[in-house]
Amino acid sequence: MKNVAVFGAGRIGRIHASNMAALPGVKLKYISDPMAHYASELAQTYGAQVAAIDDVFADKSVDVVAICSSTDTHSDLITRAAQAGKHIFCEKPVDLSVPRAVACAEAVKAAGVACMIGFQRRFDPTFNEASARLTQGEIGNPEMLVITSRDPGAPPADYIKASGGIFRDMLIHDLDVFRWILCSGDGDEAAWLSASGSVLTDPAIGLLGDYDSTAVTIRTRKGRLCQINTSRRAAYGYDQRFEVLGSKGMLQCGNHTPTEVVQWDANGIRGDKPENFFLQRYAAAYRLEVTHFFECLQSGQPFKTTVADGVAAQKLADAATESAKTGKAVEF
Amino acid sequence: MKNVAVFGAGRIGRIHASNMAALPGVKLKYISDPMAHYASELAQTYGAQVAAIDDVFADKSVDVVAICSSTDTHSDLITRAAQAGKHIFCEKPVDLSVPRAVACAEAVKAAGVACMIGFQRRFDPTFNEASARLTQGEIGNPEMLVITSRDPGAPPADYIKASGGIFRDMLIHDLDVFRWILCSGDGDEAAWLSASGSVLTDPAIGLLGDYDSTAVTIRTRKGRLCQINTSRRAAYGYDQRFEVLGSKGMLQCGNHTPTEVVQWDANGIRGDKPENFFLQRYAAAYRLEVTHFFECLQSGQPFKTTVADGVAAQKLADAATESAKTGKAVEF
Amino acid sequence: MKNVAVFGAGRIGRIHASNMAALPGVKLKYISDPMAHYASELAQTYGAQVAAIDDVFADKSVDVVAICSSTDTHSDLITRAAQAGKHIFCEKPVDLSVPRAVACAEAVKAAGVACMIGFQRRFDPTFNEASARLTQGEIGNPEMLVITSRDPGAPPADYIKASGGIFRDMLIHDLDVFRWILCSGDGDEAAWLSASGSVLTDPAIGLLGDYDSTAVTIRTRKGRLCQINTSRRAAYGYDQRFEVLGSKGMLQCGNHTPTEVVQWDANGIRGDKPENFFLQRYAAAYRLEVTHFFECLQSGQPFKTTVADGVAAQKLADAATESAKTGKAVEF
Amino acid sequence: MKNVAVFGAGRIGRIHASNMAALPGVKLKYISDPMAHYASELAQTYGAQVAAIDDVFADKSVDVVAICSSTDTHSDLITRAAQAGKHIFCEKPVDLSVPRAVACAEAVKAAGVACMIGFQRRFDPTFNEASARLTQGEIGNPEMLVITSRDPGAPPADYIKASGGIFRDMLIHDLDVFRWILCSGDGDEAAWLSASGSVLTDPAIGLLGDYDSTAVTIRTRKGRLCQINTSRRAAYGYDQRFEVLGSKGMLQCGNHTPTEVVQWDANGIRGDKPENFFLQRYAAAYRLEVTHFFECLQSGQPFKTTVADGVAAQKLADAATESAKTGKAVEF
Repeated sequence: MKNVAVFGAGRIGRIHASNMAALPGVKLKYISDPMAHYASELAQTYGAQVAAIDDVFADKSVDVVAICSSTDTHSDLITRAAQAGKHIFCEKPVDLSVPRAVACAEAVKAAGVACMIGFQRRFDPTFNEASARLTQGEIGNPEMLVITSRDPGAPPADYIKASGGIFRDMLIHDLDVFRWILCSGDGDEAAWLSASGSVLTDPAIGLLGDYDSTAVTIRTRKGRLCQINTSRRAAYGYDQRFEVLGSKGMLQCGNHTPTEVVQWDANGIRGDKPENFFLQRYAAAYRLEVTHFFECLQSGQPFKTTVADGVAAQKLADAATESAKTGKAVEF
Repeated sequence: MKNVAVFGAGRIGRIHASNMAALPGVKLKYISDPMAHYASELAQTYGAQVAAIDDVFADKSVDVVAICSSTDTHSDLITRAAQAGKHIFCEKPVDLSVPRAVACAEAVKAAGVACMIGFQRRFDPTFNEASARLTQGEIGNPEMLVITSRDPGAPPADYIKASGGIFRDMLIHDLDVFRWILCSGDGDEAAWLSASGSVLTDPAIGLLGDYDSTAVTIRTRKGRLCQINTSRRAAYGYDQRFEVLGSKGMLQCGNHTPTEVVQWDANGIRGDKPENFFLQRYAAAYRLEVTHFFECLQSGQPFKTTVADGVAAQKLADAATESAKTGKAVEF
Repeated sequence: MKNVAVFGAGRIGRIHASNMAALPGVKLKYISDPMAHYASELAQTYGAQVAAIDDVFADKSVDVVAICSSTDTHSDLITRAAQAGKHIFCEKPVDLSVPRAVACAEAVKAAGVACMIGFQRRFDPTFNEASARLTQGEIGNPEMLVITSRDPGAPPADYIKASGGIFRDMLIHDLDVFRWILCSGDGDEAAWLSASGSVLTDPAIGLLGDYDSTAVTIRTRKGRLCQINTSRRAAYGYDQRFEVLGSKGMLQCGNHTPTEVVQWDANGIRGDKPENFFLQRYAAAYRLEVTHFFECLQSGQPFKTTVADGVAAQKLADAATESAKTGKAVEF
Repeated sequence: MKNVAVFGAGRIGRIHASNMAALPGVKLKYISDPMAHYASELAQTYGAQVAAIDDVFADKSVDVVAICSSTDTHSDLITRAAQAGKHIFCEKPVDLSVPRAVACAEAVKAAGVACMIGFQRRFDPTFNEASARLTQGEIGNPEMLVITSRDPGAPPADYIKASGGIFRDMLIHDLDVFRWILCSGDGDEAAWLSASGSVLTDPAIGLLGDYDSTAVTIRTRKGRLCQINTSRRAAYGYDQRFEVLGSKGMLQCGNHTPTEVVQWDANGIRGDKPENFFLQRYAAAYRLEVTHFFECLQSGQPFKTTVADGVAAQKLADAATESAKTGKAVEF
């Protein structure tokens, strides 16, 4: 039985708590959150106790910490957890600063604990099937990747202020998908990156110095090409697709929809919009992600997404941020 | 807290037990199955106890029985449960004999207990959404219904022998869908039914006096038309679709697929086969079905699928069986 | 160079005239129509002359007559053309009376002329590809056929009065598709037919003694099953699909659409309605059909659709008409 | 009646000749091609005469010249045609050199003749419908455009040598689509362009100093973003799609397919590959394009695609070529 402490009882903390609680051999022991009401409500649902951070780290019986708190707390909690000998599941990102993220990687390594970063898209049934077929050679050698990644609407200004900007906040996932799909088969890596950003959906985002629409192109050392287009607003909902072209064909990952009803009428033939937002779209992914985490803890197999992946995506996000500001490409 | 006893620890019993156990306010108290090993394994998973049928009925603390045992036990267990004052969730069918099914309905009524029959398709997100839009008038008045219902492969001969034949075993669901979609809006009912059956996939099925492929047409009192086509074998998997034409358009319910990956290559553009069989296709439906059951118990609202629905579908299945044998239509 | 006379300068006559005029080696010599204005307009477009029926038959240089006039003139024109030694392209149906249609077949045979009946669906690229794959064994042995055939709206009452009823007017095409797809591979034939009809879209159709919605089931000698559903009205346009299930899979023929634009917005994801009606849907089929006609005349190869096919479809239409009236199945 | 002379009797010349010959009021008078055999064969098909270039320009009765000859002849023929007072239909590109293309524009203007450039994609029914809906405001203000443009296979080395490189040869169409879809509504223009190219499908292309795979990003003055991905090779055929995101939704243009057959079997659910290559995919576009040309000549309305469009696309292609070579973005 693994005893787990969850830091953060917000939206994503509740998801992970629920999925972990349903796993055999896992016990939610503590919930910790500065918002006492959230912590106690979540604790009650799963028969856990509310605890302060220090108490969690002091309790030898805690095997695992799940870091679902705000981004600015991640690196500190990772470091302390490592020092306390706890295994770590941490939501993305490791940290908005690459040096701090690297320091986390070192602390984890020094402590010999296991640490997985929550890039849940790698566990999405559709994306994961595409990755598996690519590995099996079904479309030959990968050549180009086109990622479409659009939110249904922008977050509030306060969120954006603390987010590190659209490349670090939103594209971090897409940049990880780029590495996973286009590079991971043979150790290829980004060699050249060009990014451009615009403010098209909400001037308030521009006043904060951020963009709401971006276009990124990456060329790898082997010459593979990736294009990512993102927007903070799609009137039709959450749009999460990618297409990878290979020498023998293409794998195309479509959106998930709530139902398979198609209505034929005088206006045309109409299917569902995509699942509303990430909690719906990635519901299965979040479940499979924590399953993977505990299976690896059990078996000793390596995680599919490590701190190194978090650091690598962060570096690409930094490069994209710089490129968009300067209008110049970045070479690695 | 509702205490539940589950009769039957086979495939469907395990599904319902798992879904019930995950509901707040529901406790699995007993598992009962003549196969002791199955019963104890399932009991252990959910912290329940193994019990004999008599012990279940004798225990006053049991609020609900879930009847997931073999078809020939249903009517007896319903009757005994009603007499013992337990609420009842019973897998379809009520009974292969219409008179016995009617007797069950009477026993339930006399006892004043609640009894729901597990026609899970009414809880499928896709089918349910179509039904809701129909009710909202999105396609006007319904006129025609085409149901395609095909299994990936035939069950073993032993199963078929005890099944009551393809109309009572397999089409019972489709006949319920007919009633739900084409009749339930305004009390319409079947007026004329013509059925035809063939043995096309396996001669062994013919030797048992059954069919593996059928075509049923039903005309309602209001003149609406329904066509159902079924097969015990579809090489591409479990095919569960329907289309309802109305005065203002059509609602088309497609299959569910494991992923949204589409592969483009020299052979064409290829998507997933449908979900493999009913446990996968109706996973959400089974979950929503028992949720509905306990919500209705709590609120006192009527169930969406009652013993009367079970009896009505059974009568249609009997008529189809007769029509296929004689080659003549049946009028109601 | 083949000299052609076209009887009938209405909608379908203009289509065939246009397609024939575009073929190398074909010359439109005469247009004949009781409506002089139509005849002269069509003649002018293609540099042909207006002629009376007798003059057409008297002109030895006429090689081919294309019969595109009203249904009640078909059998007379076929007979006269045969006697005059002209090859014949005749729109469906041969005649609303089976005996007269049979007499036509005999006249054609006696004269030794070639006669093709215009079942254009056999030349539709989609339907024809499905037929070809079936023949190549891609889905194994055919077992079930489901045909959906719906018009965008009912024709005027005058048309319906002279049409012979929905089974002879509209389903004649679907009954030919049944024979083509389910029977033609190995000489199978209809053994049992049950039809039902309703008046759901327009009471005026009922006053004429006809139906606007029908459901037909046919079982063949080999036990194959076919279900046809039709309506005179689909709010979303002309719906022309079929699905054939075989031992190794299914071939599904979808509608054609004007464009491949898909609009994603707050209401869902919406594609085009089907092509508006038969002139659009079967534009390619009409072109390929007359190409086939003249190629066969040149090569001496048999036509894909003969008078015998016209007679056979007519017999099925008669049986369906009778079955719908009596409520009883017909056996052959 | 407009008398037309066609320069070039190759693949594209035959297409345009065939489409023009079918138009009322258009007469193919001359075919001119250095390959005498091609010229005479095409002339014979449409009852035209073979003529030398000088003879065409000397004949006062020639109203229109259609320039379908090799790219390096375009500017010279345009200039001579303008001086001879002939109206001009010219295949893309105007010229591989922007200054020469500009000179053509001036010659056309000075002569007061009409000149249309054959960007046939603007006449494709699917693309054109998307453009029309955009203009009608169905998706609000356009923000992002993603173009996927892939050939089924690379042309021979000789072709590539004379092509001006992939950006001028292949992307010229996509760059015109960018201007048409993202700029033409309100006079927006490209402000920043970044391109990257790779050799992934055939090293021989790299030896010629060209690329076979490219990724282009353009930002407009208004901040709109466009991404274009191209490849000389897609194993599944000719891939011609674009998606435009607007403030109220998205318009997605899919490929056209030969048929609407979908095969369901043990391997999945499989539809047709796209139409094989441009002659098939754009068959309707080529027909509508020359129809538009002659309608505008008749009505005096302006063409949808002018020499100025040709020059503008050429400038973008030059910028993309430079950006890919230097790795640096180009600002306009």
